[in-house]
Amino acid sequence: MNKVVAFGEIMLRLSTERHLRFSQAKFFAASYGGGEFNVAVSLANYGISSEFVSRIPDNEIGACTLKEMRKLNVGSDNVVLGGDRLGIYFLETGAGTRGSNVVYDRANSAIATASKDDFNWEEILKDATWFHWSGITPAISESAAEACLDAVKTAHKMGLTISCDLNYRAKLWQYGKQPKDVMPELLKYSHIILGDIDTAYFMLGKDKVSPNYQDEASLPVLYEKIFEICPNLKTVATTLRYSVSASHQRIGGVLFDGKGLYHAAVKEVTPVVDRVGSGDAFMGGLIYGLLKYKSDTQKALDFAVAACCLKHTISGDYNLVSVQEVENMVNGNATGKVSR
Amino acid sequence: MNKVVAFGEIMLRLSTERHLRFSQAKFFAASYGGGEFNVAVSLANYGISSEFVSRIPDNEIGACTLKEMRKLNVGSDNVVLGGDRLGIYFLETGAGTRGSNVVYDRANSAIATASKDDFNWEEILKDATWFHWSGITPAISESAAEACLDAVKTAHKMGLTISCDLNYRAKLWQYGKQPKDVMPELLKYSHIILGDIDTAYFMLGKDKVSPNYQDEASLPVLYEKIFEICPNLKTVATTLRYSVSASHQRIGGVLFDGKGLYHAAVKEVTPVVDRVGSGDAFMGGLIYGLLKYKSDTQKALDFAVAACCLKHTISGDYNLVSVQEVENMVNGNATGKVSR
Amino acid sequence: MNKVVAFGEIMLRLSTERHLRFSQAKFFAASYGGGEFNVAVSLANYGISSEFVSRIPDNEIGACTLKEMRKLNVGSDNVVLGGDRLGIYFLETGAGTRGSNVVYDRANSAIATASKDDFNWEEILKDATWFHWSGITPAISESAAEACLDAVKTAHKMGLTISCDLNYRAKLWQYGKQPKDVMPELLKYSHIILGDIDTAYFMLGKDKVSPNYQDEASLPVLYEKIFEICPNLKTVATTLRYSVSASHQRIGGVLFDGKGLYHAAVKEVTPVVDRVGSGDAFMGGLIYGLLKYKSDTQKALDFAVAACCLKHTISGDYNLVSVQEVENMVNGNATGKVSR
Amino acid sequence: MNKVVAFGEIMLRLSTERHLRFSQAKFFAASYGGGEFNVAVSLANYGISSEFVSRIPDNEIGACTLKEMRKLNVGSDNVVLGGDRLGIYFLETGAGTRGSNVVYDRANSAIATASKDDFNWEEILKDATWFHWSGITPAISESAAEACLDAVKTAHKMGLTISCDLNYRAKLWQYGKQPKDVMPELLKYSHIILGDIDTAYFMLGKDKVSPNYQDEASLPVLYEKIFEICPNLKTVATTLRYSVSASHQRIGGVLFDGKGLYHAAVKEVTPVVDRVGSGDAFMGGLIYGLLKYKSDTQKALDFAVAACCLKHTISGDYNLVSVQEVENMVNGNATGKVSR
Amino acid sequence: MNKVVAFGEIMLRLSTERHLRFSQAKFFAASYGGGEFNVAVSLANYGISSEFVSRIPDNEIGACTLKEMRKLNVGSDNVVLGGDRLGIYFLETGAGTRGSNVVYDRANSAIATASKDDFNWEEILKDATWFHWSGITPAISESAAEACLDAVKTAHKMGLTISCDLNYRAKLWQYGKQPKDVMPELLKYSHIILGDIDTAYFMLGKDKVSPNYQDEASLPVLYEKIFEICPNLKTVATTLRYSVSASHQRIGGVLFDGKGLYHAAVKEVTPVVDRVGSGDAFMGGLIYGLLKYKSDTQKALDFAVAACCLKHTISGDYNLVSVQEVENMVNGNATGKVSR
Amino acid sequence: MNKVVAFGEIMLRLSTERHLRFSQAKFFAASYGGGEFNVAVSLANYGISSEFVSRIPDNEIGACTLKEMRKLNVGSDNVVLGGDRLGIYFLETGAGTRGSNVVYDRANSAIATASKDDFNWEEILKDATWFHWSGITPAISESAAEACLDAVKTAHKMGLTISCDLNYRAKLWQYGKQPKDVMPELLKYSHIILGDIDTAYFMLGKDKVSPNYQDEASLPVLYEKIFEICPNLKTVATTLRYSVSASHQRIGGVLFDGKGLYHAAVKEVTPVVDRVGSGDAFMGGLIYGLLKYKSDTQKALDFAVAACCLKHTISGDYNLVSVQEVENMVNGNATGKVSR
Repeated sequence: MNKVVAFGEIMLRLSTERHLRFSQAKFFAASYGGGEFNVAVSLANYGISSEFVSRIPDNEIGACTLKEMRKLNVGSDNVVLGGDRLGIYFLETGAGTRGSNVVYDRANSAIATASKDDFNWEEILKDATWFHWSGITPAISESAAEACLDAVKTAHKMGLTISCDLNYRAKLWQYGKQPKDVMPELLKYSHIILGDIDTAYFMLGKDKVSPNYQDEASLPVLYEKIFEICPNLKTVATTLRYSVSASHQRIGGVLFDGKGLYHAAVKEVTPVVDRVGSGDAFMGGLIYGLLKYKSDTQKALDFAVAACCLKHTISGDYNLVSVQEVENMVNGNATGKVSR
Repeated sequence: MNKVVAFGEIMLRLSTERHLRFSQAKFFAASYGGGEFNVAVSLANYGISSEFVSRIPDNEIGACTLKEMRKLNVGSDNVVLGGDRLGIYFLETGAGTRGSNVVYDRANSAIATASKDDFNWEEILKDATWFHWSGITPAISESAAEACLDAVKTAHKMGLTISCDLNYRAKLWQYGKQPKDVMPELLKYSHIILGDIDTAYFMLGKDKVSPNYQDEASLPVLYEKIFEICPNLKTVATTLRYSVSASHQRIGGVLFDGKGLYHAAVKEVTPVVDRVGSGDAFMGGLIYGLLKYKSDTQKALDFAVAACCLKHTISGDYNLVSVQEVENMVNGNATGKVSR
Repeated sequence: MNKVVAFGEIMLRLSTERHLRFSQAKFFAASYGGGEFNVAVSLANYGISSEFVSRIPDNEIGACTLKEMRKLNVGSDNVVLGGDRLGIYFLETGAGTRGSNVVYDRANSAIATASKDDFNWEEILKDATWFHWSGITPAISESAAEACLDAVKTAHKMGLTISCDLNYRAKLWQYGKQPKDVMPELLKYSHIILGDIDTAYFMLGKDKVSPNYQDEASLPVLYEKIFEICPNLKTVATTLRYSVSASHQRIGGVLFDGKGLYHAAVKEVTPVVDRVGSGDAFMGGLIYGLLKYKSDTQKALDFAVAACCLKHTISGDYNLVSVQEVENMVNGNATGKVSR
Repeated sequence: MNKVVAFGEIMLRLSTERHLRFSQAKFFAASYGGGEFNVAVSLANYGISSEFVSRIPDNEIGACTLKEMRKLNVGSDNVVLGGDRLGIYFLETGAGTRGSNVVYDRANSAIATASKDDFNWEEILKDATWFHWSGITPAISESAAEACLDAVKTAHKMGLTISCDLNYRAKLWQYGKQPKDVMPELLKYSHIILGDIDTAYFMLGKDKVSPNYQDEASLPVLYEKIFEICPNLKTVATTLRYSVSASHQRIGGVLFDGKGLYHAAVKEVTPVVDRVGSGDAFMGGLIYGLLKYKSDTQKALDFAVAACCLKHTISGDYNLVSVQEVENMVNGNATGKVSR
Repeated sequence: MNKVVAFGEIMLRLSTERHLRFSQAKFFAASYGGGEFNVAVSLANYGISSEFVSRIPDNEIGACTLKEMRKLNVGSDNVVLGGDRLGIYFLETGAGTRGSNVVYDRANSAIATASKDDFNWEEILKDATWFHWSGITPAISESAAEACLDAVKTAHKMGLTISCDLNYRAKLWQYGKQPKDVMPELLKYSHIILGDIDTAYFMLGKDKVSPNYQDEASLPVLYEKIFEICPNLKTVATTLRYSVSASHQRIGGVLFDGKGLYHAAVKEVTPVVDRVGSGDAFMGGLIYGLLKYKSDTQKALDFAVAACCLKHTISGDYNLVSVQEVENMVNGNATGKVSR
Repeated sequence: MNKVVAFGEIMLRLSTERHLRFSQAKFFAASYGGGEFNVAVSLANYGISSEFVSRIPDNEIGACTLKEMRKLNVGSDNVVLGGDRLGIYFLETGAGTRGSNVVYDRANSAIATASKDDFNWEEILKDATWFHWSGITPAISESAAEACLDAVKTAHKMGLTISCDLNYRAKLWQYGKQPKDVMPELLKYSHIILGDIDTAYFMLGKDKVSPNYQDEASLPVLYEKIFEICPNLKTVATTLRYSVSASHQRIGGVLFDGKGLYHAAVKEVTPVVDRVGSGDAFMGGLIYGLLKYKSDTQKALDFAVAACCLKHTISGDYNLVSVQEVENMVNGNATGKVSR
């Protein structure tokens, strides 16, 4: 029995409806999301036991967050109550040639002000088989980075599989450290990394590269250098995203397992209902695929890409789809027929 | 003066808005619809005198249904009040690669529990020139099938034109009979049949076929066999639907009148606002076309296809368009310019 | 320091949401708009001092209009209070093959019943450098045409740059005069004209032409004849619009400055959130471009086309975008990526 | 079999929701209403055959009006299509100490510009037993007043019962005539008048009075003078309304039938969901009561008052209640229990 | 540690907003509720471990129900999947003199068609200390009544406290048995009964009585007879509800524990946001009060009445309040001040 | 010509609609407000030149705030752009016995992190005649308190009238100082203070008192002691609020001008649409009243109380009413009749 524990921030998401600009909105749709939490939701939808660890404020907004976690069947037993506020992000959904806008208001959130002593990782991870984190948590504050390192080290010691989505956000990393100061130590315990090759090079402090994802010869060489720094690494995967417009994306994926290179065919995604969280949907699909299809790496990658595509059709951060729906798409049934 | 009477079920339709999944919805849009009723609405919009016969519950929800029928200018004088409930269907509208979902909750509806004695067809049809039914009514219950047969026989005796949309729904047909036990008797009185060739073969108890709608040579042969079983048959038409995605359909049509084969050019339909009821829009357009353009069969088919295309742009089950709007499209004016 | 004054009508816009037909709507979204006002809003968004002159009723609906003008940072100091009503237009937004519908209810509006004595143009224009009007104002009533001529003459006398969007609306022009009776006198003071060549010919009382906007040789000849009648003319520009469907437009532009011909590349615009006001967005972009890029006429035209494209992604009449957003698109960054 | 024909204006009603002020509204709820039409709706709800005669524009907004009439089961066979626009009224619903605001935009409506030749009253009234008009129609234009007089005279000649709600609106009567120039001629054919005594005196050109509706001795004397001028008069009724606040009304009624005086007990009405149309609900209840309870005048008055009270609980202009619901309240069952 | 298990039906609730009548609604608010489930929600809000047992259909609507249960922190581990449909009720919320309307569409629901073998009560109740049922479950079908009896007997055998809300609904009980055939056997195992005395007499097959709840002398005599039939009975409580209008209720309570009579002072409840589920809020408050305040029966009753009052201010079936909020009201702090 | 400058914080207000609890909300209504800004809005509505000084973030949410200020006709020329975020408050609107809840998320807002050097008060106040501040600004941070003191001293030096609303919020004052450390210095420059007597005593560091606002003899004595500490004081006023329930308030006022005591009669306010900002409406009304009615202090107080009452009927923080509407109420016309 697999149990995945994800650690990170969950935010209140306030978005305009019907492509309204911020200045036109009299209402914000209120939902929740965050990179690592979105992965946990994906897995819960796929029937995997999934838990999310974070710190949320002990007020009525925090209470709503807990209700949401329960509704989505994501375990919340190790959520710590405390801090002053829930992080917020404002979202204006674009269309066509106008891209979406995100305004972050997440400084001083409960998780950013958490101490590493808030989490007893040996206890938290005692039934878990997998730990997932992302590059956002070490970016928000020094103490969050410490808690993350504590988690990763404990997970490593306890023999869990560890996955990381690099998720580089330049606007974060404001507390005085750079990714290269923090990420290498964290990544060296990880078995699976999701991210662009150039982002990985940057975070690991290596020289800048410009990967050509169509070049099947050079890619293994580039991926290989990441393996060199991360001794536990088993798999590096990259989402391929070609943005035709805010309403039309083309999505594929590449995966390298240290031996071979896998490509998933690029799919047309149009229209885009909501693309926020689609990278997390890829990550969630990849974890599920690796757990379920085991040695069939190609199938795991195909599942991740199809999950990512389907996410674009769903409002909100989460990929509210079933295994059946993703597999239908993997199997070529993506024509959007009415089910009745 | 033409007057069309349609017989069947009208349901409460509860749909999510803005592509929300069922689990995200706090509201359902409430509207009404049903295959045969949707045809009656099309005809009323085209200025044809149109009446719908059904049974609805004598409660406040039933009363809303009657108001809706009047609003849409569909005659309701022969609707019978009785039974316990109005059938319901829940609709989650898909987008892109995610198809729409329909959850039926129509068992034990007022029409399913109607008796054939509820309807005095000689009286009901006395001013009518056309009777329309579909393969749904004989599928919902034995007594509904009996009422339908009674209607078809009376219409035949009174000299009305009779049309049928095959509308095969595998989830219905739960009362112990199969289509081949019931449909041949019903279809032999019909002059116009709308449906896929393979569905017609299945319902008439013939061997399975796989028609190639691009093959102009084999189609007449396949259609001809349907004519053999149905002695009154004048016209068989098939909607051609290529589902690129839930948001992009390609729509054409084929019609065989016992002598010649007619094709309507395939049109691009994107985006899809709501595709439920688009087959009924084809049927409504075909009846109107045959009534208006008489011997110009190609024009009738073109009208049906254009009507079907326009339906995809309209929320709800009904094709709320005028003759002028459909003819504009038939005449090549489909560029969606602003009318002002 | 530039200051642009626009003169015309502002209407209450009542539109259905989510592509509903008028008969399906229980709510109308209430906003405001009008050809010349929309240009003023564009300019205010681009940081240009902008003022709108009109007449609005001295009631609570008129008061809302003033609040809207202030919110949008468009000067309203010379708006005259009076008259009985604000003009209204009803809008049903189409999709795909179904075009949008506009129903005008603007007769007897405050501006249509204004007298030319309501406006003291010497006072109004004293700090202005640019005056903008359109072919709608002389179309709504004789007194509005007189006020417009008074404005244009005064602007000319005071040395302002004068621009005009021809905006031919056949349904207006009900008061007994034809465009050719009124427009030549008005246009001869204008420096910039936006409109189709055939519309210009019609309004100036010349023989009918059918310009081919791809024909680089014949266009200057056609444009030249407009220059002959309008002695002050510096620039004629035309928006090129190819309507694939109500949801998909292709937008380009042509400009002739008396010497050379400029083309802006055609861009794909899909999906269309709202195309009303997109011509005004072109006009607003052109004025801004001519002011900012001065002798770089190509850049001015490119800015106008990009502004027009972006407008299609925004609900309501106004082009609520910044210079930065338009320039991003001019510079090829139109892929609609999330900004975060 | 009774059949009531009402004649007057039906308007588009644009109202703010949830007590918003006009300047706060981004949406208007769109419904329909008008004094005489509201009476026709009441009667249709009570199962009386009811028809409304008016003139509406032949455009898409007019078409919505016809759909609404049919939905409400009010006959529309003699509605004339023509004119430029449907009258509009804007409504801001107050609360507590803040009263509701109505902004009229009804000048030049289709009915105001109708000619008396638009209506063939002998044909229109041929199956009718009752004609209802109000003091609004003669107030909107000279031609509407003429059409109204034509209708009243024809109804009189054909032996119909004629009722009138005085409905004095000072803002109307803009075409050069005063009520006393027009109303006496119209009222002398009427059998039932609803209105305040002082309003009746004013409209009939009599000296000003200040009736005390609690003074059972003086009231008959005051009412008697109205009878003197109106030779066909049988019944004068007055709604008693005490406005505690916009959210709390106290409603009673007085009726004089030339012989005796009837009082209906004052009832508390709180909260007020929507008080527009409550006078029309009284009028509709009174017509129904007089038709159904015949000589039991007290019961007719009680029905009218209860109908008026219930109207305050319903959004929109119409009193969407059944006879059963009104009678329950007349019989003292007004405690608002859940019916299940 | 207390753990309460409730057994019964959970329905989809479809309600109109803003006091709209059914025929005015284009949308239904979708929520969930049912007498016994509402009690479970109350207890979960008060921090009591609470579980709900029922049968729901294995489709997407049933899946929504499970998400709702989890969100509300009500255990769902023993919910059985099966059957064809979720019961539905339509709700039109009244105001003032117009009461609310409920239209049931709950026949053939998953729980009504459940078999008693669907539930293994020894397993289900193994950690529980309290079992709650109501008079609705034995009313919906014979098999549901059997399952209920099985549950009650097992709970009795296992030593749980058993409570019942009589909840008489005349429209149910359609399967051939009367309350007196079924309820006495069920009630004789119960320790706590909530209901009107006359309802209890009727359900127990005793002669009709008309209790006067202000008569402190006769009440114990009447209650005593219920104790005589129900050998395990400890407490009978009755909600006192005086319905001034749909928007104004007056709420009190009476409790008899076999020895003494307790009265809770009547409180004014105005306005009423939603009164559905207020009886269940009383029941939930009473169970909590008896568990928490133990021998302080007056305090338990006061808590139940305050909980019932607060429920009227909350949309939906559930009493979404905390212990602190109820206790504030019990302690006299009911002035509705802003908490900030 | 009066010009009032107010200084303080403007926040984004996120409120649930229709009395929903936070956990039920899928949408938040987005508006703006803050004690001092609400006063500025009141004055702008009354036709007084009014400006608001604050610091807001230079992002898209800050830009919305500026649009709002302009829409409301409140000057924004001296708003400083900077800081990280706009303060937020979440509002759940209660009903009846359930009070409203406010959750603050305003720490680290742009104004809280402003430096006193951000504001050049001599420049800002150069055309002003009145300066308004409140006890909130010195409570949010040390630097905000310093900026406030700077403003008050400059205003004093420049001879402006200075008013202060004490607005004690215990949850603020987190930066290490207590009101008594900061407020006396600030208040000694003020001419008008609005607040409860006991709050004033507390903030001025005096012994606790329990004023009885009905005791006409003791009140002047209590108020007098405030005058003793504040040498510039002319007027102290107190809003009298009796909270019957969240939906029913009773509002009066008391004012002492150093010589005489004025009482305004208590008025019933029911229902309450929104009570947030009603104290600010009192303050705005008082400033207006003192400016307009000058020596007629009773009228100024009556105006303030009527303004406060009317605010309760309006959604949002602001008192969107005109002088005419307030005066109508002062003159006894508070019956909420329809204006048409």
